[in-house]
Amino acid sequence: MKKNLDTFFKPKSIAVVGASKMSTKIGHAALKNILISEYECKLYPINPKEKQILGVKCYAKLSDITGSIDLVLISVPAMIVPQIMNECVQKKVKNVIIISSGFSEIGNYELENEIRKIVDGVKINVLGPNTMGYKNASDGLDASFVFGNPRKGNVAVISQSGALGIGMIYLANNEFVGLSKIIGVGNKLDIDDDDLITYFSRDPETKVMGLYIEAVKDGREFMNSIKDCNKPVLVVKAGISEAGARAAASHTGSMAGSDDIYSAAIKQAGGIRCRDIVELFDMARALAGQPPAQGNRIGIISNGGGLGIMLTDACVVNGLKIPKLSKKTYNKIDRILPDLVKPNNPVDLVADAGFYRYEACTRALLEDPGIDGVIVASVHGGYARPSEFTGAILKMVRERKLHEEFKKPILATWVGGKEFEDIVLDLKTAGVPIYPSTWRTARAMLSLYLEGERIKREKGLD
Amino acid sequence: MKKNLDTFFKPKSIAVVGASKMSTKIGHAALKNILISEYECKLYPINPKEKQILGVKCYAKLSDITGSIDLVLISVPAMIVPQIMNECVQKKVKNVIIISSGFSEIGNYELENEIRKIVDGVKINVLGPNTMGYKNASDGLDASFVFGNPRKGNVAVISQSGALGIGMIYLANNEFVGLSKIIGVGNKLDIDDDDLITYFSRDPETKVMGLYIEAVKDGREFMNSIKDCNKPVLVVKAGISEAGARAAASHTGSMAGSDDIYSAAIKQAGGIRCRDIVELFDMARALAGQPPAQGNRIGIISNGGGLGIMLTDACVVNGLKIPKLSKKTYNKIDRILPDLVKPNNPVDLVADAGFYRYEACTRALLEDPGIDGVIVASVHGGYARPSEFTGAILKMVRERKLHEEFKKPILATWVGGKEFEDIVLDLKTAGVPIYPSTWRTARAMLSLYLEGERIKREKGLD
Repeated sequence: MKKNLDTFFKPKSIAVVGASKMSTKIGHAALKNILISEYECKLYPINPKEKQILGVKCYAKLSDITGSIDLVLISVPAMIVPQIMNECVQKKVKNVIIISSGFSEIGNYELENEIRKIVDGVKINVLGPNTMGYKNASDGLDASFVFGNPRKGNVAVISQSGALGIGMIYLANNEFVGLSKIIGVGNKLDIDDDDLITYFSRDPETKVMGLYIEAVKDGREFMNSIKDCNKPVLVVKAGISEAGARAAASHTGSMAGSDDIYSAAIKQAGGIRCRDIVELFDMARALAGQPPAQGNRIGIISNGGGLGIMLTDACVVNGLKIPKLSKKTYNKIDRILPDLVKPNNPVDLVADAGFYRYEACTRALLEDPGIDGVIVASVHGGYARPSEFTGAILKMVRERKLHEEFKKPILATWVGGKEFEDIVLDLKTAGVPIYPSTWRTARAMLSLYLEGERIKREKGLD
Repeated sequence: MKKNLDTFFKPKSIAVVGASKMSTKIGHAALKNILISEYECKLYPINPKEKQILGVKCYAKLSDITGSIDLVLISVPAMIVPQIMNECVQKKVKNVIIISSGFSEIGNYELENEIRKIVDGVKINVLGPNTMGYKNASDGLDASFVFGNPRKGNVAVISQSGALGIGMIYLANNEFVGLSKIIGVGNKLDIDDDDLITYFSRDPETKVMGLYIEAVKDGREFMNSIKDCNKPVLVVKAGISEAGARAAASHTGSMAGSDDIYSAAIKQAGGIRCRDIVELFDMARALAGQPPAQGNRIGIISNGGGLGIMLTDACVVNGLKIPKLSKKTYNKIDRILPDLVKPNNPVDLVADAGFYRYEACTRALLEDPGIDGVIVASVHGGYARPSEFTGAILKMVRERKLHEEFKKPILATWVGGKEFEDIVLDLKTAGVPIYPSTWRTARAMLSLYLEGERIKREKGLD
């Protein structure tokens, strides 16, 4: 039975224990982030020494509050946390975020166990300790102590590293990928990755999940939650090397486990393991912005032979197929190419290709029932017309909405040039992922194929 | 006996056969690029119908020119090329670039063989056919028909794909990596990769070589040229998959050969195989800007535990070692860390690390004889101070020039944030490669280690 996290993510009342007037204190930043959110809820700063903080009436202790409390954020020295937790239990608080650090991550297992005993058998959800908290972009609530605003969108991020979690917000923002929620799980005393995966699988605001994990507490529960999940789950598992595992142990105090076992288990469960957070977001934006591929047969279009070949190599290495063109598609493309060039897959549109060649060729491949996804690429070989390249792709994305046979993913690749860097924003904002690397494009297409396969299994078609 | 290419790259006289007044013609663009170069040489446009082109006196045919000709660029229809080549031989032209396409790359082997017969036994160097020509940034001569100006620097690029070659100029420009020369080898009728590797190995302006190849004509010569080369040679070999090889065959008309054999042979010869052109330039800028690593023991510094762990993983997967800190180094770093945190390798400087922590820790690792290279990383975890991060690195790079023990490579990694995107330019312009990906940083460090090993072999130390 997984945790009910509705009041955790959408609390009607929040108390911040350790709220402070000092702007350098975490308890100050946490309270401020909630205020900045302009989220509708009751808010209670707790600090016995203050009358009010940031204009909000302050309480000496939790028991002074008359109403019920959905969520308590705790930011006090570690040794005082057990006392606060006892107060939370007495007050029948539903959810707690222990921001404070100084527990198992520095070897203080005893103190962490003390808290575990306090909540044992009690109906309370505890996040942390040693966590940044969460940012719920869907509902506009920032229950973390770190500054950083994600765009609102449909990727949920679960991170065992707080700093990296914030870094991922910036990564996502740069790529115009929106997040639904981002949460730091810290030492995972209670709320664990599997609880969150299960919650996000029912969250209508979440379409894709991305996890950064260093260690899993309950492998079986973790894998089962991925298996039962009706959405793509992307996993970066760090600490795969001995030296990395040693560092992970000192970072979050947990053992890392065998890398091969993780890889096999994640795959078996239907998740997708990513090499690093760059790949995680490459895949996330593909999955968030594009339909899944119904098979692994990919059509490749470029204006440079070499670029097409490198894309082909990268696709094939990743288990995708670049089939020969059907007679019908060959004829369609043959009509639009310069005389000396013959159609192939990858299609070489020649260096000076503009809107028309890109559009007609993308259309021909989308119409081909033997093609499951299309990669459209441009290299600035001296003649490139970036806005015609992106314009043609955007037109086909618009038409895709009208034609059933067009419901195939389109990804883009570009090589070189500041002219491109500006123009690629057009594609990113329209949800068409564009990558400055052939490898990254192929990996993203792989994720769309794997998602297509996952859905087939889910529907019992496979 | 390799070709002497001195007059090829530094001609005192150039003729452009097929020069044209029409700006859409390649013969026009080629002439214009030479003029734009402001390179000191005699220049002869050849066109029987014109008196002058772009203000330069025009000649009807090569034999009308009285002086000797070091280099002829040919841009006429393929079927006329043999006739022009005969004229070149009669005129005792030293070097020819056949820009024209329509030869083996479209299956017209007969026409290419005709040219081969014409130059057989003649002392003449022929580049192409089907080539963009070259850009000699060292001497400021653009003998190509494509627009695109590389920064002057010390990376020589050899590309079998013209469009990709130009794309690589833009890639290099964006990263502030300068090129010495960039050349398209086209169908490699005569001048081949091995001739160029040998030439660049003696070129004082070239420090690193990067090759994009789809097929090698003479495997033994190619590998020997890498083996004999006294500089790092980076190789992207495309057409590794069956579908990719099929596409390569139709791109340059040559067979691709077994991928595994290429990998093994390149490694055996002492070259470094790169996965794609992104990796090629990642490694090229490391090799161009940083000293090689004398061993594979890497120290990692970050302000986010997760980032340090991912860097560690990526290094170890690539054969690098992340050794435990020596007692001395541990003590040095322990003094500057916040109380709760203990030094490790990777070193976690904690999210709010500023100039001092970064500087002192980088210094401690550079001073440690058990560390051969340093990676300094920053993630924007809400508290990052990008300019302090880059400032500390730049200071250590300056000090490196003064201290013998500091002569170790420093690479940087960053995650997230527009604030970083601006500030990383400071590092790039100072020759400190900074990568937005843990994997790419580790691969670049690997290339510095491999270069250190290559130099040891060269000196007979290994």
